[in-house]
Amino acid sequence: MNQIRVGIVGLGRLGKIHATNLAQNVPGAVLVAACSFSDEELAFAATELGIEEIYNSYEDLIASPNLDAVCIVSPSGYHPEQIRQAMEKGLHVFCEKPIGLDLEEIKRTVQVIHDHPEQIFQLGFNRRYDESYLYAKNLIDNGELGDLMVIRSYGLDPISGLKSFVKFAKASNSGGIFLDMSIHDIDVIRWFTNKEVVRVWAIGKNSAYPELDQLNELETGSAMMQLEDKTMAILVAGRNAVHGYHVETEIIGTKGMLRVASVPEKNLVTVFNENGVVRPTSQNFPERFREAYISELKEFIDCIKEKRQPGISAYDGLQNTVVALACQKSFETNQIIEIL
Amino acid sequence: MNQIRVGIVGLGRLGKIHATNLAQNVPGAVLVAACSFSDEELAFAATELGIEEIYNSYEDLIASPNLDAVCIVSPSGYHPEQIRQAMEKGLHVFCEKPIGLDLEEIKRTVQVIHDHPEQIFQLGFNRRYDESYLYAKNLIDNGELGDLMVIRSYGLDPISGLKSFVKFAKASNSGGIFLDMSIHDIDVIRWFTNKEVVRVWAIGKNSAYPELDQLNELETGSAMMQLEDKTMAILVAGRNAVHGYHVETEIIGTKGMLRVASVPEKNLVTVFNENGVVRPTSQNFPERFREAYISELKEFIDCIKEKRQPGISAYDGLQNTVVALACQKSFETNQIIEIL
Amino acid sequence: MNQIRVGIVGLGRLGKIHATNLAQNVPGAVLVAACSFSDEELAFAATELGIEEIYNSYEDLIASPNLDAVCIVSPSGYHPEQIRQAMEKGLHVFCEKPIGLDLEEIKRTVQVIHDHPEQIFQLGFNRRYDESYLYAKNLIDNGELGDLMVIRSYGLDPISGLKSFVKFAKASNSGGIFLDMSIHDIDVIRWFTNKEVVRVWAIGKNSAYPELDQLNELETGSAMMQLEDKTMAILVAGRNAVHGYHVETEIIGTKGMLRVASVPEKNLVTVFNENGVVRPTSQNFPERFREAYISELKEFIDCIKEKRQPGISAYDGLQNTVVALACQKSFETNQIIEIL
Amino acid sequence: MNQIRVGIVGLGRLGKIHATNLAQNVPGAVLVAACSFSDEELAFAATELGIEEIYNSYEDLIASPNLDAVCIVSPSGYHPEQIRQAMEKGLHVFCEKPIGLDLEEIKRTVQVIHDHPEQIFQLGFNRRYDESYLYAKNLIDNGELGDLMVIRSYGLDPISGLKSFVKFAKASNSGGIFLDMSIHDIDVIRWFTNKEVVRVWAIGKNSAYPELDQLNELETGSAMMQLEDKTMAILVAGRNAVHGYHVETEIIGTKGMLRVASVPEKNLVTVFNENGVVRPTSQNFPERFREAYISELKEFIDCIKEKRQPGISAYDGLQNTVVALACQKSFETNQIIEIL
Repeated sequence: MNQIRVGIVGLGRLGKIHATNLAQNVPGAVLVAACSFSDEELAFAATELGIEEIYNSYEDLIASPNLDAVCIVSPSGYHPEQIRQAMEKGLHVFCEKPIGLDLEEIKRTVQVIHDHPEQIFQLGFNRRYDESYLYAKNLIDNGELGDLMVIRSYGLDPISGLKSFVKFAKASNSGGIFLDMSIHDIDVIRWFTNKEVVRVWAIGKNSAYPELDQLNELETGSAMMQLEDKTMAILVAGRNAVHGYHVETEIIGTKGMLRVASVPEKNLVTVFNENGVVRPTSQNFPERFREAYISELKEFIDCIKEKRQPGISAYDGLQNTVVALACQKSFETNQIIEIL
Repeated sequence: MNQIRVGIVGLGRLGKIHATNLAQNVPGAVLVAACSFSDEELAFAATELGIEEIYNSYEDLIASPNLDAVCIVSPSGYHPEQIRQAMEKGLHVFCEKPIGLDLEEIKRTVQVIHDHPEQIFQLGFNRRYDESYLYAKNLIDNGELGDLMVIRSYGLDPISGLKSFVKFAKASNSGGIFLDMSIHDIDVIRWFTNKEVVRVWAIGKNSAYPELDQLNELETGSAMMQLEDKTMAILVAGRNAVHGYHVETEIIGTKGMLRVASVPEKNLVTVFNENGVVRPTSQNFPERFREAYISELKEFIDCIKEKRQPGISAYDGLQNTVVALACQKSFETNQIIEIL
Repeated sequence: MNQIRVGIVGLGRLGKIHATNLAQNVPGAVLVAACSFSDEELAFAATELGIEEIYNSYEDLIASPNLDAVCIVSPSGYHPEQIRQAMEKGLHVFCEKPIGLDLEEIKRTVQVIHDHPEQIFQLGFNRRYDESYLYAKNLIDNGELGDLMVIRSYGLDPISGLKSFVKFAKASNSGGIFLDMSIHDIDVIRWFTNKEVVRVWAIGKNSAYPELDQLNELETGSAMMQLEDKTMAILVAGRNAVHGYHVETEIIGTKGMLRVASVPEKNLVTVFNENGVVRPTSQNFPERFREAYISELKEFIDCIKEKRQPGISAYDGLQNTVVALACQKSFETNQIIEIL
Repeated sequence: MNQIRVGIVGLGRLGKIHATNLAQNVPGAVLVAACSFSDEELAFAATELGIEEIYNSYEDLIASPNLDAVCIVSPSGYHPEQIRQAMEKGLHVFCEKPIGLDLEEIKRTVQVIHDHPEQIFQLGFNRRYDESYLYAKNLIDNGELGDLMVIRSYGLDPISGLKSFVKFAKASNSGGIFLDMSIHDIDVIRWFTNKEVVRVWAIGKNSAYPELDQLNELETGSAMMQLEDKTMAILVAGRNAVHGYHVETEIIGTKGMLRVASVPEKNLVTVFNENGVVRPTSQNFPERFREAYISELKEFIDCIKEKRQPGISAYDGLQNTVVALACQKSFETNQIIEIL
């Protein structure tokens, strides 16, 4: 039958999610090969998912004659090179965000993708495939909110991960909170408004781990942006959320407002107990975006079958990074940064 | 000026609320006299509210030449006799619910009130003066919900009062949970629907204090009722609410539904903490109905000044009691009780 | 590989959902055959789902040598006979609720199922597989709510279906609103409490279509029930919900309360517009229970693979019907019905 | 008795509210005199409130021998001079926000107030007396949210007032949206955090009335601020809110978050209709802050009686204006403005 054969590289926390979805939850896809440096990860692929083709090297993976497409969930620094190699092998590519860490390298990657217009390329900005974000986007595009005036987007990670982040930050460079986390919000801002950011001011604060100050890292950061049509954008990123994983976006328009997930409800249950009236909340991104992770891969497979590119382009990946880097630079200099 | 001079009898928990409102928060009223058996209560009136006329006997209170009206907040058993005496003295009467405990005595009291049509008589069914209940009543009367099909009303007392209730129930007769608590819900059902109840089945359960079974008392009771036009009514009364004081009413109509206080929100604050997303709740009736207690007395004073009777009549007090007693009888016999 | 091969009978609205899920969304299942009287439905199976084995007769379907299991989504009256035939062929059976319409026939069917303990039998009470209901069930079983005092469960269908229901009711016998709709609430009541219903009183009202009175059919019905341990249960069923599809369940316990879907939120979006602050709502059962329909079939397949019976038994199907029929009889006689 | 005798100047929309509260809802206050240029307003005071002393001139008002205090609700430009005159007459002063429009004049006014420490001076920053804001402030001060990281505050006026604002803006100088509206948010930010703002960037956008661009006026403006301890503050002001009057404040701390009025609920009613599940909203500031307007005057009277200054000082009025002016300057120059 008309099954799209996919190989995956990277089987960390998110890699396992993508692999499981490709193996079980995405009609029309079949996961045929997996690549990782980690034996534990490869054992997962073999045992849990029944994958027969197992590789330690990315070159070997994409050399497999059984692949139509590759799903890249490796560390961000590898993305550009792995995209290039897959593209040159004629494979369709699904790549987790970001497209890369270095701006010049990203630009070269965008060019590589541009040079292979017959192959599908999709970036894993998962919010674009979340049912609630899509419902909001639809209301906006239908003019239900009128002209857009303000867009506010929050990405608040659960506090449970803060300690391990601090350890990580001491060992390696995350790129900063805006590149690491806010890039999702930047993508939503550009997607919802169809406008580009022209200037930004970003600030931040550390409290529990003041040693992060030395590392240019932040527990919590905020940025305000002016878009090309003067629409205002506000973002907050945090690693401190006690109540769970809180991703929220607001649009204020001349005809109405909307909020996506102002309460990051876990389900439809409300509990009335000694604390008051309580809505339990999503605790992490796999829980909050479980469906979106499936939907984005369904879209990838559909795009391959229908020979059309997805709504999110390599150029979006580039621009999102440009803005995120401007935020980081603004934070470091405490000045407004103009984006040309 | 045109001040209405009021005397109050009973300065318990609710009596103190009414007295304070009459003294401070009800324009056009002046609290001139207070009566209680309790020295502590009279000291409150004298010291906190500056009341100069202080009485140990109700006869002395209503003999005062300085009164236009009396506010009766004494134990329910005294209500009929105190209403009669005040009416015969020519005083306007505000009386806390219920109008009385014994049906025949209530009927005689209704007749006494009926015989003094120039004097204002108002019963303290406070929900009729709550802003949210009034808003709902207005939507219903404007036909926004279409024909009414189901009305559900809950009165759930905070668990903090359960222990003292058990002690009280062993010493005296509360009349049962339906007369004690559900009479408010019965009043709302009759007020919202403008229909009378024709039959009822009531059941109940005890858990924490099974000894209540012997006393015919309930921690939690439910009743279902059929109204004269087949509208369905459901009520639940409980003494177990861990989250606070929860009074809720729902109307299901052919054109829409509404709920009053499905979450008994304390204020407009939402807290996001380790419990999830939390709305703090009202903890007791003085908190939940603070404004309604003022509004009902404002209405009483306005009725006196404008020489018109309030929306709630002595007959309502009678009918509410008839239905509450039918609920109690149904619970005791586990049979449907017809109300003639 | 270890794929479970399933045939389906019935491809109406819900049948198409089950067929699509079996074909695409249930790992480990493969839909190999479909049976229907309707050419349109069979064309759907062939074209949309690529099913090659197509049958007009149920006997032919279950005679196929390629089946491990059958999924019965035919009209309720056929269920008992189709279950029997499949069981006798040695097939595992997933059957939509109810297990049947006639009590004696259901009892015989339960016996047939009992006589084939090696074969999996699962009933489609989908709420048992809904994430929010499962979360609630877990809180209850963990004692978070203490002793259960009251359970209230609503099933309110969208008004969009009312007109076509009236037409249907004139032509055929739905069994009444309690058997047709409330049986889901009855199942939840029994599942959440682990107790049986001992007596019930049911009432109802028609408004938009008074001709339903002659047919013993209801736009809206209510029932109150006493369970064996005196726990109180309340249910409301309606065909009038203007705001969409509203299935809600509440538990009041001695240590807390909870509500499942007190607002039947469509997604995580909140709209602030001229109507106020609005949560869009689920409009129908496929939308509300989309995930539950997948989960129940995943469970069915897992049960087959792991050789264990699901949590819901044929006996549950029988008892749910006994209670629903008692509700209907109570409504017809306006008396309390005892359930032995 | 110990009544505080108050005169009021200004009986516009808010002046009428304060006058009515002083006359009827503030125990211990008696409104004895009123001053206005408008005959209609004076007629209101005489007829509706029964005020006998009526003045056309502020000098005459404060020359009355019957006054203990004055309530200033005149246009903002008059505030400094009227405060000075009242202070020099020995009167206690309640003055609506802002303390003035010109920074040097405000500084002189602060000095005047400082020179009369025995007289009570209170500014009408009403949110400080709102029950929900007080509840939030209490949680913050008790450390429930941990260290404060981000504070976000919105003031969104209902769209119903936009047209008349445009007309007003063409005729006179509002001072700009930040001085006119955001000053409330600035006060909340300083009050909640106990920190001063050190730099700000403000931007804005016009859509429905682009002619506002020429007037340096805004339909919607945003500002981001860095406080002295790096806490981040975000504010949005708008004149476009279709859903009503929306004042919201959020605090993100290291131990939790809270929001005041994320939904500006009108009451406790929820409506389920063809729009979905709807919470009706407050439509204007008199509705939203009805209680706060009473509470702030109660506090003023209590401060006079108890010879203590209120929590909000003249210095707060000065600082709030300094920050609001910095926002306006930032918007006009599109640069970060440092506040010394």
